[in-house]
Amino acid sequence: DLVDQSHLRNMDKELIFEGLKRMYRKKILPLEESSKFPHFHSPSLNPADFEAKPMVLIVGQYSVGKTSFIRSLVGKDFPGQRVGPEPTTDRFTAIMYGEDEGVMPGHALAMQADQPFRSLQQFGNNFLSKFEGSVVNSPILRNITLVDSPGVLSGEKQRIGRDYDFSAVISWFAERADLIVVMFDAHKLDISDELKMVIDTLKPHHDKVRVLLNKADAIDTQQLMRVYGALMWSLGKVMQTPEVCRVYIGSFWDAPLANLENALLLEREKRDLIEELMGLPDNAVVRRINELVKRARSVKVHAYIIHYLRKQMPYLYKKEEKQAELIARLDQEFVACARRYSLPLGDFPNVGKFKRKLREIRDISKFSKLDKSLVAEMDKVFTHEIPRLMERAQRGGHSATPSPQ
Amino acid sequence: DLVDQSHLRNMDKELIFEGLKRMYRKKILPLEESSKFPHFHSPSLNPADFEAKPMVLIVGQYSVGKTSFIRSLVGKDFPGQRVGPEPTTDRFTAIMYGEDEGVMPGHALAMQADQPFRSLQQFGNNFLSKFEGSVVNSPILRNITLVDSPGVLSGEKQRIGRDYDFSAVISWFAERADLIVVMFDAHKLDISDELKMVIDTLKPHHDKVRVLLNKADAIDTQQLMRVYGALMWSLGKVMQTPEVCRVYIGSFWDAPLANLENALLLEREKRDLIEELMGLPDNAVVRRINELVKRARSVKVHAYIIHYLRKQMPYLYKKEEKQAELIARLDQEFVACARRYSLPLGDFPNVGKFKRKLREIRDISKFSKLDKSLVAEMDKVFTHEIPRLMERAQRGGHSATPSPQ
Ligand SMILES: Nc1ncnc2c1ncn2[C@@H]1O[C@H](COP(=O)(O)OP(=O)(O)OP(=O)(O)O)[C@@H](O)[C@H]1O
Ligand SMILES: Nc1ncnc2c1ncn2[C@@H]1O[C@H](COP(=O)(O)OP(=O)(O)OP(=O)(O)O)[C@@H](O)[C@H]1O
Ligand SMILES: [Mg+2]
Ligand SMILES: [Mg+2]
Repeated sequence: DLVDQSHLRNMDKELIFEGLKRMYRKKILPLEESSKFPHFHSPSLNPADFEAKPMVLIVGQYSVGKTSFIRSLVGKDFPGQRVGPEPTTDRFTAIMYGEDEGVMPGHALAMQADQPFRSLQQFGNNFLSKFEGSVVNSPILRNITLVDSPGVLSGEKQRIGRDYDFSAVISWFAERADLIVVMFDAHKLDISDELKMVIDTLKPHHDKVRVLLNKADAIDTQQLMRVYGALMWSLGKVMQTPEVCRVYIGSFWDAPLANLENALLLEREKRDLIEELMGLPDNAVVRRINELVKRARSVKVHAYIIHYLRKQMPYLYKKEEKQAELIARLDQEFVACARRYSLPLGDFPNVGKFKRKLREIRDISKFSKLDKSLVAEMDKVFTHEIPRLMERAQRGGHSATPSPQ
Repeated sequence: DLVDQSHLRNMDKELIFEGLKRMYRKKILPLEESSKFPHFHSPSLNPADFEAKPMVLIVGQYSVGKTSFIRSLVGKDFPGQRVGPEPTTDRFTAIMYGEDEGVMPGHALAMQADQPFRSLQQFGNNFLSKFEGSVVNSPILRNITLVDSPGVLSGEKQRIGRDYDFSAVISWFAERADLIVVMFDAHKLDISDELKMVIDTLKPHHDKVRVLLNKADAIDTQQLMRVYGALMWSLGKVMQTPEVCRVYIGSFWDAPLANLENALLLEREKRDLIEELMGLPDNAVVRRINELVKRARSVKVHAYIIHYLRKQMPYLYKKEEKQAELIARLDQEFVACARRYSLPLGDFPNVGKFKRKLREIRDISKFSKLDKSLVAEMDKVFTHEIPRLMERAQRGGHSATPSPQ
């Protein structure tokens, strides 16, 4: 059974998540708060951000079969589901596990503390009324959460029809997703300018992107090769990475294959895709650890930047002039700060964005003093705790302790 | 029988070629000679350039199976043929029809007036000693001539091993070829920098380029999809045309397929490729007409440029200064000339190259005067003779005149 291939027992996973949560709360969060990290970067994390199931985001032109694919994964119709030949899905839907099936409206879902959707509130009412949760009692959802999205339309329709920032929302989900599935229809391949923009948005996350060439069962092998070849030809140019993106070829819904000429291939491809989806929970553990390390490094650098700027502020007079001066030559200040505290320049944030955020601070000297013992505590995270968790995550089910029968 | 699908009877073709030759000699060549067109552009054409069979150039990394492919097309070993796992073919070989089989050395072949290879002499002894003809009595060679090429090597080997300008030679053949086949080996796909340069050289001729993904029979369908996908991904970026290049997938030699999983596909692909090769003679007729029109347009514009520059030269004094002045502002002269004689600017040659060639002329005023009746004669080529030939070529075998049984 595919679902059982997971090598990390659930108990192990929960222990690791608990460890991450504790580490974050005790060692990282204090430094984030004293240096106002959330103002400059991203909101502090909630417990839900650690526990959240791996999320799979599904995007693509309208009618390529996104909703039908999700339906086939969950194995039944889900609340709020709409499938049809014209543009049908008009909202982002998080399809999540639950015993009591039903739809949960976007505003309510974005308020829940135990869900990772709170920061979606930044996109406002227009977006939240196009967002909902669909709670389904389906086994696959115990392991992953699926996110259905409205089909990308072409030209004016896309621009006029959406009264929220579609790209920014896609970006939000893409950043948090463990896998991003971009679907294409083998019968109409054209990559519209709007879809190109969406793919551009996904670029920072290209290692998480997979492509499905859907509805590939109605054409013969030679046509399939032409369509698939044309897709790869364009994708290579649009995605611009040297590594070739994994493309799964198939018909990703429940109906039997329309044409058996490529049955063997399509079945193997579907099996591989399901296998990748089933492996997400294990990979998610490693990914969460990685993300926390990345965040901790940013927090450390951020705290030192604030410290370094604050130290240069005068006690009484000409505070404003000095602050303006520091902002103006912020790039040089970054270099000096990196040298002073032996921090890698590569960990420093974007200068332009940091300047903008800094201008919103009235008086840098009001920041609280850097407590170096907090930094020392956090450094232990890198040197001791993370390596230990990492080892545990990788050892996984292959640990020497006997597993209960 | 595939060989019989040609819709132009040989008699028609010969009539058309005779027409083109006569037209060129009577209407275009006189203007070329009086305006020194060959000095600025390319050598005047020989009768052989019209009659030459469609040429198919085969290129690719070493050991991809170029020579084996040619062997399978001609249906027997050909004189001078060498096949092997290391870099084997060390020369350009024109595989041509003839009753008396044998090898013809490059120097001799490039001297023959009835062959289209005369202008290869520009590449000198080093090249000519790496060039040969292989005369074979094989039916397919009645319709096309095949050109085998030495495999592209990687890195230093390519640069050091070749004591002639490899790219320039590829360019020469590519320009004259009716089809350019770029071969890849499904087992090792890497596109080396050297191969990238060769593909760059082929860019102006991208409509004639076809790709063969060779040795595709030993892998299963999923592997084949991955390899083929990776090839398209890279080719799209290297070739940079929006139109997708036709890629034939198969095992293009005589041995039976190593694995039957994709037998149907590979057989259909081979059939399509053979069909395209067999259709070349018909297409070649239209292509030759097109090329002659293109050349005639260039000749006309060239003759007017010379005329326009010559007119501005003083009779006696300060010739050199004036000539230098004209060359310095040649781009403006082109614009003025185009306006004066209602010539499309798009037909004008590259300014930089024209300047270089012009500097080699001692005195522009020594050019002979433009005989406008020659231009009028040539204009008739466009308005009357070409359309008539074109119609004949396209009507082809479907003409209303009863064909002899
Ligand atoms: N694998 C498939 N093969 C053939 N047809 C399919 C397949 N999957 C879905 N369809 C059909 O394609 C149409 C669009 O399907 P669906 O609504 O799932 O697409 P969608 O991508 O969710 O569209 P939208 O962006 O408008 O929400 C429907 O008519 C559906 O029945
Ligand atoms: N379709 C094929 N499938 C498997 N092996 C092949 C195929 N065609 C050729 N080979 C083998 O690959 C090797 C190279 O073949 P060949 O000499 O024809 O390549 P080539 O491209 O002409 O190489 P070079 O550039 O060195 O001249 C030989 O060992 C040959 O037997
Ligand atoms: Mg949908
Ligand atoms: Mg060879």
